[in-house]
Amino acid sequence: MKFCSNCGAAVTFRTPPGDSLPRHVCEQCGTIHYQNPKIVVGALPVWEDRVLLCRRAIEPRYGMWTLPAGFMENQETTAQAAARETLEEACARIEVGELYTLIDVPHISQVHMVYRARLLDLGFKPGEESLEVALFREEDIPWEQIAFRSISMSLRHFFDDRRNGTWTLHTASLAPPPAEWR
Amino acid sequence: MKFCSNCGAAVTFRTPPGDSLPRHVCEQCGTIHYQNPKIVVGALPVWEDRVLLCRRAIEPRYGMWTLPAGFMENQETTAQAAARETLEEACARIEVGELYTLIDVPHISQVHMVYRARLLDLGFKPGEESLEVALFREEDIPWEQIAFRSISMSLRHFFDDRRNGTWTLHTASLAPPPAEWR
Repeated sequence: MKFCSNCGAAVTFRTPPGDSLPRHVCEQCGTIHYQNPKIVVGALPVWEDRVLLCRRAIEPRYGMWTLPAGFMENQETTAQAAARETLEEACARIEVGELYTLIDVPHISQVHMVYRARLLDLGFKPGEESLEVALFREEDIPWEQIAFRSISMSLRHFFDDRRNGTWTLHTASLAPPPAEWR
Repeated sequence: MKFCSNCGAAVTFRTPPGDSLPRHVCEQCGTIHYQNPKIVVGALPVWEDRVLLCRRAIEPRYGMWTLPAGFMENQETTAQAAARETLEEACARIEVGELYTLIDVPHISQVHMVYRARLLDLGFKPGEESLEVALFREEDIPWEQIAFRSISMSLRHFFDDRRNGTWTLHTASLAPPPAEWR
């Protein structure tokens, strides 16, 4: 951030009085521009013993597989975000269930949430951001081709919990990946 | 948002190609300025049969009681945010426990999360944003003077769950309050 989005003047980066962190501050109009973490919401859509995955048609991780997920929008709920992303990326209709994983990713200032979901019909197909959409049994999941760690963690918990018959919220915090993964 | 925070030019509000929602777009440098929901994280600090509340020294809801809570900052986890807010508002040290409530507040584009926590000692006192900090038994909670609905919901769940001995994540979505409450 270099300019004030309210008045267009150049901003400075300093700690406002009474605050404990430096912020982008406009010395002309006085606006303090806070920057906060973003929420990424996804769904884990299930059809019988299979899970719906999308192959990414966009960067980052073009060509890799993921659960339908994306940035939460203003004016929606987390569950609505899960359903919207699933419709956009896989043209798939779901019934959103319980919040299943909540994973902090502080080095990129994100919080990832995945909801369990029931796929309502088989009329899915790739949306604009997907190359391919398909249902996978546990033994067919392309583990080495999963785009994000929060997604592979959510999938591993799902298959473990299904085997054990115990469903619970899973929380975690991810450290930065090793440099060679970036 | 009126000006591009990257180059200072005036922005327009339109739906970028391939997108489904209007965004603030800079026609000069091409930056798309996304706006996303913010996360408010709080703690529910417990000492024996009592809960720590803070009386607000700031607007909104000056003079009303709340759990320690505030906007999550970049580069931290949700649990770290809960501990930081508790230290800032109540000078209180806690051990953060399980995520306890997750409440969508879509009409103000916020997601509120409250963690259960164990108060580590009695050395609390008001921080800069609090008039007063105190421990309350259930029968002494000033229910009519709680600042936010997500906080009173979290407290009610806590006392109910404690009575029943069953702890679980509680999720909810809040509609806009009646006009006379605003």
